[in-house]
Amino acid sequence: MTETTPVTVFGLGVMGTALAEAFLRGGHPTTVWNRTASRAEPLVEAGATATAGPAEAIAASPLVIVCVVHNDAFREVLTPLAGQLAGKTLVNLNNGTPAQARELARWAAEHGIDYLDGGIMAIPPMIGTPEASVFYSGSPAAFETHRETLALLGQPRFFGDDPGLAALYDVALLTGMYGIFAGFLQAVSVVRSTGSTAAEFLPLVMPWLEAMLPTLTHAAAQIDGDYGEGVTSPLAMQAAAFDNLLDTARDAGVRPDLFVPLAELMREAVAAGHGEHDVSSLVEVLRVEPAATG
Amino acid sequence: MTETTPVTVFGLGVMGTALAEAFLRGGHPTTVWNRTASRAEPLVEAGATATAGPAEAIAASPLVIVCVVHNDAFREVLTPLAGQLAGKTLVNLNNGTPAQARELARWAAEHGIDYLDGGIMAIPPMIGTPEASVFYSGSPAAFETHRETLALLGQPRFFGDDPGLAALYDVALLTGMYGIFAGFLQAVSVVRSTGSTAAEFLPLVMPWLEAMLPTLTHAAAQIDGDYGEGVTSPLAMQAAAFDNLLDTARDAGVRPDLFVPLAELMREAVAAGHGEHDVSSLVEVLRVEPAATG
Ligand SMILES: NC(=O)c1ccc[n+]([C@@H]2O[C@H](COP(=O)([O-])OP(=O)(O)OC[C@H]3O[C@@H](n4cnc5c(N)ncnc54)[C@H](OP(=O)(O)O)[C@@H]3O)[C@@H](O)[C@H]2O)c1
Ligand SMILES: NC(=O)c1ccc[n+]([C@@H]2O[C@H](COP(=O)([O-])OP(=O)(O)OC[C@H]3O[C@@H](n4cnc5c(N)ncnc54)[C@H](OP(=O)(O)O)[C@@H]3O)[C@@H](O)[C@H]2O)c1
Repeated sequence: MTETTPVTVFGLGVMGTALAEAFLRGGHPTTVWNRTASRAEPLVEAGATATAGPAEAIAASPLVIVCVVHNDAFREVLTPLAGQLAGKTLVNLNNGTPAQARELARWAAEHGIDYLDGGIMAIPPMIGTPEASVFYSGSPAAFETHRETLALLGQPRFFGDDPGLAALYDVALLTGMYGIFAGFLQAVSVVRSTGSTAAEFLPLVMPWLEAMLPTLTHAAAQIDGDYGEGVTSPLAMQAAAFDNLLDTARDAGVRPDLFVPLAELMREAVAAGHGEHDVSSLVEVLRVEPAATG
Repeated sequence: MTETTPVTVFGLGVMGTALAEAFLRGGHPTTVWNRTASRAEPLVEAGATATAGPAEAIAASPLVIVCVVHNDAFREVLTPLAGQLAGKTLVNLNNGTPAQARELARWAAEHGIDYLDGGIMAIPPMIGTPEASVFYSGSPAAFETHRETLALLGQPRFFGDDPGLAALYDVALLTGMYGIFAGFLQAVSVVRSTGSTAAEFLPLVMPWLEAMLPTLTHAAAQIDGDYGEGVTSPLAMQAAAFDNLLDTARDAGVRPDLFVPLAELMREAVAAGHGEHDVSSLVEVLRVEPAATG
């Protein structure tokens, strides 16, 4: 496709709007559709075309990007339009699970639709900047054909023809991010009980978190190798101290809910023989026994 | 005190051993005691003095450092020795809660013991390096007198005469750290279901986590100011997507336990009117209602 492939964007929430803006900036004829039509207005002013209905929006472009709240909304809007989508490339950028992506890829294949599933690793203001990256998996042909157009959104990364992999890595990174958020929000809540502001806590907590991130490299080596290699903080000791973390929250008038399961997992891991191992050995209790999965 | 104040270290686990080594390197006469006497041997070879009993260990130094597993162990060892500790400085470096620190400070005051409570923000190999920092609170006189000696362990930081504050900030930072660990270990577990190693996941997850840390500055500003300021990822959208995170884990044969409470808190926050706010608004549901705390 040329650099001016017409593009259609379904879903004009904060993210879909940012995607459409990036295509407009890149000089692509851009057609937009949103359930609540008024959200298209600023984009139309910026040069996009709004259509009366979703079928007309699909007819306008060979490349259709969807970014609605979740895959239930995706199905609601797009499954009735499978006939119109035949022969086109459909890129699903809303959040979903690998299983949902694989199921939608099967549905697309049945209708002759070239399907890419994707995960946006960015917040809307990052779209179109070098910091944004977008994961894709599914049709290699669709990815190759539209790679340059998709690169307008952020650094594209293709995970191969298993359509579930982009969602899997998307969810994995979001899980890491939510770990950071949960820890920070819980910590801030405890500190605010002293009358401190969140801003006052930043100079203490930020360098600490930055110093902790590199320790994950050692954790990864232990997970791939030996949980007992170079242990500096035995899990039995950590488990013994962990109730202090929950009690400190309670005493500060903060719910400990977010960290209660970690206390339980630590106890389980110690009981399973990981007391002299590092915290990385928790992956052993996180994994459901093969009998239950297989 | 001079730079060669004699120091006694109680507790020779991985951390206590690192503390004693740092005092020895700094040229301080160092006396050590551990419940399991054999753990003192390498330190004695390095120049430390081991005593027959804990009372003799206290008699050897004006500055007594304790680093055992928790404050129950601290009490078990030290409360019978309050008489011997009178007139000395006692520095409690094991993990504990602010309430425990305040209670131990009262006990110390009753017995004429100058008490400092502390939190070690480092793992043992960092002790004595510029990366280590140690939090203190309690007796300002004790901190001033022994500041230089304590600086051998790591950058000392004094939080004032409320003996609970070092423990509070210690626990707060550990909470942030455990958030990182929980997110990473959960994410790695999901990714390993594809056959990928943890090491293979690092080049993807590390830059992502590094990019997410600075967003906490915006979260802090929202917490101190307005949860609706500059929202890029509405909580209602995040809550809608969050089940995908739990389902992806389950489908991958990984227990979702660590993140189940976050799903519940997001739902509560949306129900409480934070759907158009950022995830930072979760601090509102983390805080127990004033009625329940006061
Ligand atoms: N914002 C971010 O930081 C971010 C980052 C990465 C990925 N994402 C993903 O991007 C997707 C969109 O998120 P967003 O931030 O743009 O959320 P948003 O601002 O809440 O927008 C949600 C969009 O979904 C549409 N929608 C909801 N239910 C629908 C239905 N039943 N039928 C048709 N359309 C429906 C909404 O249409 P109406 O206007 O008619 O309600 C709106 O366009 C989500 O899957 C999200 O996980 C977002
Ligand atoms: N390692 C770290 O990364 C780290 C970091 C910051 C803070 N800390 C804190 O440092 C403290 C010590 O941790 P560690 O890493 O050295 O743990 P560790 O290697 O497991 O050592 C535990 C120590 O506690 C002693 N102990 C346990 N129960 C006792 C009792 N009832 N009476 C007397 N002594 C008892 C043990 O004596 P025995 O040898 O006789 O069992 C041993 O000396 C903990 O509070 C921990 O939270 C550790």
